Amino acid sequence: MSGRGLFVSFEGIDGSGKTTQARLLSDALRRTGRDVVLTREPGGSDGAEQIRRLVLNGPAERWSAETELLLFTAARRDHLERVVWPALDRGATVICDRFADSTRVYQGTTRGDLRQTVDRLHELTIGTEPDLTFLVDMDPVAALSRADARGGESRFESMGAAMQTRMRAAFLDLAKCHPRRIVVIDGNRPADAIAQDVFAAFRGRSLG
Amino acid sequence: MSGRGLFVSFEGIDGSGKTTQARLLSDALRRTGRDVVLTREPGGSDGAEQIRRLVLNGPAERWSAETELLLFTAARRDHLERVVWPALDRGATVICDRFADSTRVYQGTTRGDLRQTVDRLHELTIGTEPDLTFLVDMDPVAALSRADARGGESRFESMGAAMQTRMRAAFLDLAKCHPRRIVVIDGNRPADAIAQDVFAAFRGRSLG
Repeated sequence: MSGRGLFVSFEGIDGSGKTTQARLLSDALRRTGRDVVLTREPGGSDGAEQIRRLVLNGPAERWSAETELLLFTAARRDHLERVVWPALDRGATVICDRFADSTRVYQGTTRGDLRQTVDRLHELTIGTEPDLTFLVDMDPVAALSRADARGGESRFESMGAAMQTRMRAAFLDLAKCHPRRIVVIDGNRPADAIAQDVFAAFRGRSLG
Repeated sequence: MSGRGLFVSFEGIDGSGKTTQARLLSDALRRTGRDVVLTREPGGSDGAEQIRRLVLNGPAERWSAETELLLFTAARRDHLERVVWPALDRGATVICDRFADSTRVYQGTTRGDLRQTVDRLHELTIGTEPDLTFLVDMDPVAALSRADARGGESRFESMGAAMQTRMRAAFLDLAKCHPRRIVVIDGNRPADAIAQDVFAAFRGRSLG
């Protein structure tokens, strides 16, 4: 299902700078003449963006963790069908700001009993994994103040330093479980220094 | 998860009269003093109704069968959490116009390769089955003309006689697989005659 192209995701806690890095890698690859599709989750296709709005608007207790997981999975399926798979099929490089690792960390860590459901639902209805994932790792308190300064959507941003710390640890655990796929990048530096590391790692994987 | 109450669903093809029969049984049981919750799917709770609108509006190709299945499952989960489980927990009788059998028939028959996914998704995220299901069985052509006369939502109504015939056969196959749960009622008669059969079958199951 993953076609001839290359699927790259960026992951990390809110405020880690992953969105900036996804854009910088996208720009750098385009300058080399690559066909690059820069996209994001949740959302990334018309239908998925509508589901995203349905999930993220309203009070925190509006959806249970289980319903939210199903809605995000529906959005991911639509995004894959409409954007990611067609791009990979034509040989493009797809760069996605957040993908399934975010679901594993946010839904699977905040509700530990859901982690197995997260994995089984992924196997059942998604299947696709990135060829390469950059985890932009950053001090949780610094990331939090950056996310707070930026504002954001009501339900997931600004969950507090304790939560940011837990999420960071969960991302790092995931990276340990998938050392070939997930590259951990030190995000506690200026954006251009981080971008150089990302680009070097991308080329080092013989993908550039 | 199913509490102390009783969970009854009505199933059948469009125009079979199941909605009328769900209401008539609900009225009859209320007259005996029962606490009855009459509800429907897709929808039945605020969140599920919003998901319903997202699924049913727009052109037929708007969502793939897989995404639609995930959205309907999210709606079902919300409906169970907000309406069905709390009612069953307090001992009420819940009467639901369509439930998981409709998903098995509509999503699992129109896309035969999805049937196993339908079942696995149900086990993974729903679990609950009705205690008793009435399948209102009706001549597909007569049901179709009734559904056509009524109009309806754009994506699923009026799928044509051939489709109605296939869906009817799929419901009857399902009834054969679950003879204890699913009672087949002949819907080719006046509504009050059908309602008498439904009520008799309900009481005959020692549930009245």
